[in-house]
Amino acid sequence: MANKPVAVIAGLGSGSGTGAAAARLFAKEGYAIALVARGADSLKALADEINAAGGTATPFPISSYSTTDVNGAHARIHDHYRGQPIRVALYNATHDVWKPFLDITPEEVQGVTQTNLEGAFAFSKNVIQAFQTNQVDEKGKRGALIFTGATASVRGNVTTSAFSAGKHALRALSQSLAKEFGRQNIHVSHAIIDGGILTSSARERRNDPKWEQNEDVRLSPDGIAESYLHLIKQPRSAWTWELDLRPAHEKW
Amino acid sequence: MANKPVAVIAGLGSGSGTGAAAARLFAKEGYAIALVARGADSLKALADEINAAGGTATPFPISSYSTTDVNGAHARIHDHYRGQPIRVALYNATHDVWKPFLDITPEEVQGVTQTNLEGAFAFSKNVIQAFQTNQVDEKGKRGALIFTGATASVRGNVTTSAFSAGKHALRALSQSLAKEFGRQNIHVSHAIIDGGILTSSARERRNDPKWEQNEDVRLSPDGIAESYLHLIKQPRSAWTWELDLRPAHEKW
Amino acid sequence: MANKPVAVIAGLGSGSGTGAAAARLFAKEGYAIALVARGADSLKALADEINAAGGTATPFPISSYSTTDVNGAHARIHDHYRGQPIRVALYNATHDVWKPFLDITPEEVQGVTQTNLEGAFAFSKNVIQAFQTNQVDEKGKRGALIFTGATASVRGNVTTSAFSAGKHALRALSQSLAKEFGRQNIHVSHAIIDGGILTSSARERRNDPKWEQNEDVRLSPDGIAESYLHLIKQPRSAWTWELDLRPAHEKW
Amino acid sequence: MANKPVAVIAGLGSGSGTGAAAARLFAKEGYAIALVARGADSLKALADEINAAGGTATPFPISSYSTTDVNGAHARIHDHYRGQPIRVALYNATHDVWKPFLDITPEEVQGVTQTNLEGAFAFSKNVIQAFQTNQVDEKGKRGALIFTGATASVRGNVTTSAFSAGKHALRALSQSLAKEFGRQNIHVSHAIIDGGILTSSARERRNDPKWEQNEDVRLSPDGIAESYLHLIKQPRSAWTWELDLRPAHEKW
Repeated sequence: MANKPVAVIAGLGSGSGTGAAAARLFAKEGYAIALVARGADSLKALADEINAAGGTATPFPISSYSTTDVNGAHARIHDHYRGQPIRVALYNATHDVWKPFLDITPEEVQGVTQTNLEGAFAFSKNVIQAFQTNQVDEKGKRGALIFTGATASVRGNVTTSAFSAGKHALRALSQSLAKEFGRQNIHVSHAIIDGGILTSSARERRNDPKWEQNEDVRLSPDGIAESYLHLIKQPRSAWTWELDLRPAHEKW
Repeated sequence: MANKPVAVIAGLGSGSGTGAAAARLFAKEGYAIALVARGADSLKALADEINAAGGTATPFPISSYSTTDVNGAHARIHDHYRGQPIRVALYNATHDVWKPFLDITPEEVQGVTQTNLEGAFAFSKNVIQAFQTNQVDEKGKRGALIFTGATASVRGNVTTSAFSAGKHALRALSQSLAKEFGRQNIHVSHAIIDGGILTSSARERRNDPKWEQNEDVRLSPDGIAESYLHLIKQPRSAWTWELDLRPAHEKW
Repeated sequence: MANKPVAVIAGLGSGSGTGAAAARLFAKEGYAIALVARGADSLKALADEINAAGGTATPFPISSYSTTDVNGAHARIHDHYRGQPIRVALYNATHDVWKPFLDITPEEVQGVTQTNLEGAFAFSKNVIQAFQTNQVDEKGKRGALIFTGATASVRGNVTTSAFSAGKHALRALSQSLAKEFGRQNIHVSHAIIDGGILTSSARERRNDPKWEQNEDVRLSPDGIAESYLHLIKQPRSAWTWELDLRPAHEKW
Repeated sequence: MANKPVAVIAGLGSGSGTGAAAARLFAKEGYAIALVARGADSLKALADEINAAGGTATPFPISSYSTTDVNGAHARIHDHYRGQPIRVALYNATHDVWKPFLDITPEEVQGVTQTNLEGAFAFSKNVIQAFQTNQVDEKGKRGALIFTGATASVRGNVTTSAFSAGKHALRALSQSLAKEFGRQNIHVSHAIIDGGILTSSARERRNDPKWEQNEDVRLSPDGIAESYLHLIKQPRSAWTWELDLRPAHEKW
């Protein structure tokens, strides 16, 4: 256990979405999971659940995605996992603002910015520097860094001026990193998630059992996590930077 | 064996590239492989190799990607596999023309067109109609259809006026089909292959053992095939239409 | 009049759309207009109208966009305008197929292909070779070649599998040509027309006077032609390859 | 003079680039120019130059692109031009960071962010609210807002992780605004400037008279401004959201 490779996952919401599904799946694959997010309680609950299921997870709560807070979490991760290589990182943090442009406040722009630029840059810097200390593994990688995007990553729209600005920025960061660090065998990917994800908050908000039960119309966090695991396992001779993920019946 | 699901693969070159690697991998996964391509000899050699390795493959040679020839091959496939469902199809046919625009002949434009439009439309029509007769499987699919694209699928360039016209058309077809038939649980994908692939013809043309041996700089057909298999296995709640594939050190 | 520069315009429909509006505007700007399209009668009517209004236009009817027919028209143009430089070309031909994929016939695929690939390649070859014989003008150009695209040029969709395949191919051609011939001071552009255009056939089909009269909701051919003229006039230090054009209230 | 329509231009560098060229051209077209930028001295020099040439320009210096500073400038603009409608706005501010990712400081990320998100959102809010008080003009517009982008707006690359993140965000904002406010007859556009612009700082940095004199290889601010003016004048039935601009010989 002491030499398990580490997967750092930032952005875990209420513990029922993409980040949490990835945490559970990567734990089963043998990674020690470092959980980074706001919301210390749900973070602890998720870590407890993974540990109870035979995995290894540790919460590293933060109060914001500021550079200082993100660096602080990474310092604690670094201390905690001495001797265990960080091999995987997922930046899944999001800050949803869906509003007519004139209703968006400077604070909301700032929230989107902190999550998608400030925090993403700090997170990426920490994990890339950690990856650079690794040897290439049997797949030819020093590490794999995945970013969760959305349709708003490639298309601005009415009510998404702030959200899509943030998501476009995050996508640009991921593309730049993929190009810059691919030659160092660091694999950077970006997933465009298109459609509603079956999370506990979506269940509550929609209150629509038919939607929940119809696997053709909503994304499952587990399905997303499977594709993330595929990205991590891709051999050095055939890497993906970007893929989209949507339910079978999604209109797009 | 009689009830193995069938994978139809069109475009096999000399039997050393993406189509052939997919054929070998899908055969190991339990599919009966229907091989469609020009070049009856190399087609037979590949079928023999797969059969000798414990798989099941049958060659269906064609003399061109005309509607008539493609329909003829599918009629023979249909007859050959009575009772076995066609579950997977890969359209990997290509017609490479890399030339200054003014040197491209009408015949070369016609070759690109037949492969990427005429033949692709005929192939797609046949497999989609076959998929429609299937029940959804445990992944929620009636069938999976994959198209092999290239960087030229998303970018025209000097010397690629014909090649990129064909590849753009093929990508548009695949996107339209993904949108139209997703709601029938038919999963259509498109892969943007970016970089040189290690095929026997590339080995000969380059005559560069360092390139061959360096897994960081060239695509491996097997690596591509692994991602194709991942697409086939994606569950209905998280489907990919498009992904890119390139070697770790590719400049892009 | 004998030394007016020539603008060749292919694709004129019923003489009420983009091609015809460009012909009228370019004639006012001092170009002799060579009209290339199927439909000899409406072509003659348009030429007569332009000539009656003080412009100069000559019809060069073709029976198809085959290489042979397109080359034939250009041979006649070449003969007709001896001594007058061809400075502008607009490829506005289209072949609309909006149908569910399984209803599209091989003949319809062939029609889309002939218009967007075969004919477009032949047209481009003729005009680029004509441009190459020109000196650069005061804007720094040997010639300007514009292609009319559509939303389907950048997005495949349900019912546009054939149409978008053709339009994607045309866009790839235009991008390749822009890159290859920019350095020869030949300016190639592509316009993405997004929305319904106020043509006589749209008037009849819709029979909706409110739509006709509301300039915010439909494209005007004259408005499109103004932007085409802007492209033609752009100086060598700031050329556009691609722009989109849509009505103010279009949802996109 | 008192009822000239107003054009607000933010981002003027040393007064020799795109913003300044647009200011000069729009002044000739009859707009009163409100100049917003850091660098009170060069701002005053540009205003003096425009006024001396018979135009009307007023400097509104800011110390940063913070929401507070941008709002402050707009309050002063509002006071200054009572009774004159704001009809045109150009957001041309930029914050160039071209560096390997690991060398980029949090302060540089913050600079990129402030210019492309915080300041751009504040600027857009002010001008859109001003436009909403206008009647539609003879072109069918309440106002035109243009954003200056770059190749980095659509492509992340090695050394552009921060720059392209900011530019992608700005493009997403402009696309969202175009979609949201088009139906209010507010025309929002985005220009992708691809290539080196002939500014005084580029002259100094390059010290390459051949490059300066060769109009085929570098962008001229005046050429860019001409296309901006075309966007402003487009009629309501044929609006462009996005176009690219590059020199004739640019490799892309």
